[in-house]
Amino acid sequence: MNPSGIRIPENLKQLNTEQLEALCAGLREQIIATVAENGGHLASNLGAVELTVALLRAFDIPQDQILFDVGHQCYSWKLLTGRDADFRTLRQYGGISGFPNRTESEADLFTTGHASNAISLATGLIRARQLNGQPGHTIAVLGDGALTGGMSYEGLNDAGNSKLPLIVILNDNGMSISSNVGAMSKYLTNLRLSKGWLGTKKAVSGGLKRIPVVGKALFTFFEGFKDHIRNIFVHDKFFSSLGFRYLGPIDGHSVTDMEKVFRRATTLNEPVLIHVVTQKGQGYAPAEDSPDVFHGIPPFYVDSGATKEAEVPEFGKTSAQHLISLQQARGDICAVTAAMKDGTGFSVFEEAFPDRLFDVGIAEEHAVSMAAGLARGGQRPVCAIYNTFLQRGYDQMLMDVCLQKLPVLFLLDRTGLSGPDGASHHGIFGLSYLMTMPGMTVYCPLNTRQLTAALDDALSSKNPTAVCYPRKIPQESVLLDADTQPCVQLHEGTDAVLLCAGVIAEEGLKAAELLAQEGISLAVTAVIRLKPLDSGVWHAIGTQPWFTLEENVRSGGFGEMLSAEAARAGITPPNACFALSDTFPAHGDRKNLLKDAGLDAASLASTIKRSIGGRS
Amino acid sequence: MNPSGIRIPENLKQLNTEQLEALCAGLREQIIATVAENGGHLASNLGAVELTVALLRAFDIPQDQILFDVGHQCYSWKLLTGRDADFRTLRQYGGISGFPNRTESEADLFTTGHASNAISLATGLIRARQLNGQPGHTIAVLGDGALTGGMSYEGLNDAGNSKLPLIVILNDNGMSISSNVGAMSKYLTNLRLSKGWLGTKKAVSGGLKRIPVVGKALFTFFEGFKDHIRNIFVHDKFFSSLGFRYLGPIDGHSVTDMEKVFRRATTLNEPVLIHVVTQKGQGYAPAEDSPDVFHGIPPFYVDSGATKEAEVPEFGKTSAQHLISLQQARGDICAVTAAMKDGTGFSVFEEAFPDRLFDVGIAEEHAVSMAAGLARGGQRPVCAIYNTFLQRGYDQMLMDVCLQKLPVLFLLDRTGLSGPDGASHHGIFGLSYLMTMPGMTVYCPLNTRQLTAALDDALSSKNPTAVCYPRKIPQESVLLDADTQPCVQLHEGTDAVLLCAGVIAEEGLKAAELLAQEGISLAVTAVIRLKPLDSGVWHAIGTQPWFTLEENVRSGGFGEMLSAEAARAGITPPNACFALSDTFPAHGDRKNLLKDAGLDAASLASTIKRSIGGRS
Repeated sequence: MNPSGIRIPENLKQLNTEQLEALCAGLREQIIATVAENGGHLASNLGAVELTVALLRAFDIPQDQILFDVGHQCYSWKLLTGRDADFRTLRQYGGISGFPNRTESEADLFTTGHASNAISLATGLIRARQLNGQPGHTIAVLGDGALTGGMSYEGLNDAGNSKLPLIVILNDNGMSISSNVGAMSKYLTNLRLSKGWLGTKKAVSGGLKRIPVVGKALFTFFEGFKDHIRNIFVHDKFFSSLGFRYLGPIDGHSVTDMEKVFRRATTLNEPVLIHVVTQKGQGYAPAEDSPDVFHGIPPFYVDSGATKEAEVPEFGKTSAQHLISLQQARGDICAVTAAMKDGTGFSVFEEAFPDRLFDVGIAEEHAVSMAAGLARGGQRPVCAIYNTFLQRGYDQMLMDVCLQKLPVLFLLDRTGLSGPDGASHHGIFGLSYLMTMPGMTVYCPLNTRQLTAALDDALSSKNPTAVCYPRKIPQESVLLDADTQPCVQLHEGTDAVLLCAGVIAEEGLKAAELLAQEGISLAVTAVIRLKPLDSGVWHAIGTQPWFTLEENVRSGGFGEMLSAEAARAGITPPNACFALSDTFPAHGDRKNLLKDAGLDAASLASTIKRSIGGRS
Repeated sequence: MNPSGIRIPENLKQLNTEQLEALCAGLREQIIATVAENGGHLASNLGAVELTVALLRAFDIPQDQILFDVGHQCYSWKLLTGRDADFRTLRQYGGISGFPNRTESEADLFTTGHASNAISLATGLIRARQLNGQPGHTIAVLGDGALTGGMSYEGLNDAGNSKLPLIVILNDNGMSISSNVGAMSKYLTNLRLSKGWLGTKKAVSGGLKRIPVVGKALFTFFEGFKDHIRNIFVHDKFFSSLGFRYLGPIDGHSVTDMEKVFRRATTLNEPVLIHVVTQKGQGYAPAEDSPDVFHGIPPFYVDSGATKEAEVPEFGKTSAQHLISLQQARGDICAVTAAMKDGTGFSVFEEAFPDRLFDVGIAEEHAVSMAAGLARGGQRPVCAIYNTFLQRGYDQMLMDVCLQKLPVLFLLDRTGLSGPDGASHHGIFGLSYLMTMPGMTVYCPLNTRQLTAALDDALSSKNPTAVCYPRKIPQESVLLDADTQPCVQLHEGTDAVLLCAGVIAEEGLKAAELLAQEGISLAVTAVIRLKPLDSGVWHAIGTQPWFTLEENVRSGGFGEMLSAEAARAGITPPNACFALSDTFPAHGDRKNLLKDAGLDAASLASTIKRSIGGRS
């Protein structure tokens, strides 16, 4: 797909204050209406409306380069850079992505989704611009949550030292996804609450009344004393230690205030960090009141804020509940999360054991090694992290957990295709990276019985263990009823065998039904414990032609592993391994994504039929 | 292997100043003598002698928990905790490890080697201790180089916020491996050079005369005013922002000064960072003069400091030289390293193009994403990072390079077994993690011709590319003469085929010779481009029984990939895949490590013979 050109409303820079207010109100309306229909990231996007308008007025893209960390703040950006007509397709299959996306528009410099990398990317962009001799400014916009990630610090350390004229805009709404954590969060709160060197306060609009920020009077003052710019702002210790000039705090809901500071920053020709204070959910009462609930939300009713979807049984919540009961008996279980206490279902664990849940913020590296420390100290830590985000802890899992042979239990939530969140959020590398890790036991449960059995096994073992699951527990009765052996038959068959890893076994069962209609009898077996592999797998195959199915990349995954193990065991190789090919799947509903990948029931059935055609 | 108990010299805490000096001189002598014989990390260890003695006098292990980041400072620790008798076996096969090692002694809490994780591990240990209700103190000792890694910041952010009574000792020698980089480095230099609140200077012994540190007079003062402890130290901005009380700078070559501050820190019951200033190489003139050369050094002559080994041709240096000539013609090539400018051979690139090499310090995450930014800006970045350390950039390679389809070229130096550095330094997961990355091209060249051809291909392509090689270029003429096709035959044979990835093909050739003596004719073919796989591979196999060989873990590696590809292509599966099994190999000479893994020529020949016995 070729990215579209950038179309910014022509008169954007000419609008007066009233017109700007109307524009922002209109943007909010569109965002609320679309997210209410399609689901999406609401609260963070409502907080960034004025910020986005100010960015596009103060800077000229594409000569100036603006990039958003994570991308939970990009909806206004999409609406204002040419994607307003398509905005109603947000997060839908074939529609526009919920995150910045290179293939969608030239306005999006990177396809994003993982946190804390914007300063690094911007540092590279600015260096390239300098080497190319190109004019312009480079601006990295990040939320305060992204500052809990060490990568942001690595970027500040390098850019600050190299005196790059990088402009970092810190959009501080005091939250990452749930409440923010860490000393940095406290530090920012102190900056927000301090009065500044001139001791002037300004009451601002919206929900920020209690936060003193630099207001109009000061800007007027500031115009006359440009050499003393830093004096009108709060005194910062942290960012200045790293070579950044700190400007702030600024009212993040005043377009004109922000614009002035942004323009001024471009004249400084040094590393600048601008601290903008916004309110998550601004302008929509239910989101202002519950910004955590409205961070990422399924379709909802605009009037009440109530979600349209019924609550579904989730693997994460089941894990947390089961671990609570185990902890009541054992006394040595701790939970570790990385800013995903709610998403992983572990809030209830914290309610039950407030001193035994450690939410370290968006800091997966630290989360994994801290868990290793807990295990070394005799505790039994459970690290609940999304499959895709645990990629950040890959080295730490190898070095601090597996090399030490420590019994850390990893729960990889959101395993498999992520659906509407798209490319950066699919948990499709997990099986591959877990199986390479020496001594790691790996489970893919299909139902709560298998899940709790896996947790029990893990906690009675001395080995590192990983349990992989998607969010929802499948409601297909064959899966729900499946037993807890390492390898379970879900459907009998005599013509061929399909070995499945994870809940994609549902598609396998549907394929068996389709094939049955054509007189082909396909056995479907789920492998629950992938590593160490149970020899039951070979009994399941017998002498029939066989296939594998997984929701993971082919390379190093379940199918390749079984192919190699089969070769070693002298078993005939599989006829085909169904897995994700060597690309990043797009966003959209599961059904379409599976079809694209050739992993839906119809595609499976047709390939299997063709493959064993001669025999049936 | 069961770890040995801890044996600390009984009278250590009773020694007077003179005796302490004699002890430290003795430790230095042992360290110099052993490293001169076996090679090892010299300069950093010489700098940490007094620090280690002070730690063992001020604290009581194992009740108090002391852990070293990376472990380049652990030799005195090993000598003083019971491994003095075995110290001469340092880094040798079957001998003691060059890094802290759990399996070796109860004094070593973790097996280490990768940087910046000590604060995280210590944070976990201290929480476990609190939950267990155990007494004691937890101390993380790290070099200033480890502070360039974002993970250290993640740890400080969490421990500082949680007000954990963690003691972080920053051993600041102003260098990581080569000169230190980053704003943090400048910040520490400023702290070192500032006079402190009381404005008192003290000239100290050794190489520190120009650095004012807190001396005896101040400690006497300090004894009387314990509530004002912070007042006698320099005022810090950075660490205090993160909730740590900063104490320093302290003379890191005065045992008694350090001891007093360490003891005082235990009474504060809050997060404390103690800034200790040492000189790398202290006490051995050649290492004081060239601490970078004596960071990690092969065997050398004590008198002159000259190394005993002749210089060997290296892949890294060849890469750098070739890229210099390409850059002279192209004008768009940049190099990125993570504190490994010398180790990767890229110092010469910096000499040729000083504004085109970016050394970001020990910060692989940032290195990868910064390179992505350079590529997005139209430059052609080359990331030269050791195979094992690039594990830290796993997520960034996937998300910021492959998902964006950016042409970043990765050079994975030190691919394969690391030899004497051991478990944490083997580059044995690289092939597996690279091959899972969508769109990544992967090369394993055997000689300089294949290397430069791979670099040329990579730089004329628009895809991300990884080129994997060990340090030394093999001198076996068959490998040196091999051509540049994606797949090259090194040895003809008619009974079986061995397909090899990388320079371990040398063992394959030797195996072919051994088998020839027994009348078995083994063809040996090297696959130079592993991904995308060349169909020449299948021609090489024909209808013969075949085997694969690699210096990588089996899971997701070369052999598994070929097994699966063969199944897809309808080719008979391999008789065996020779690869590293599901464990972390130990340290020692390559010959023994290969033998342990069953990858030496004799083991290969014997397995192949047994496997094809019926046919030959």
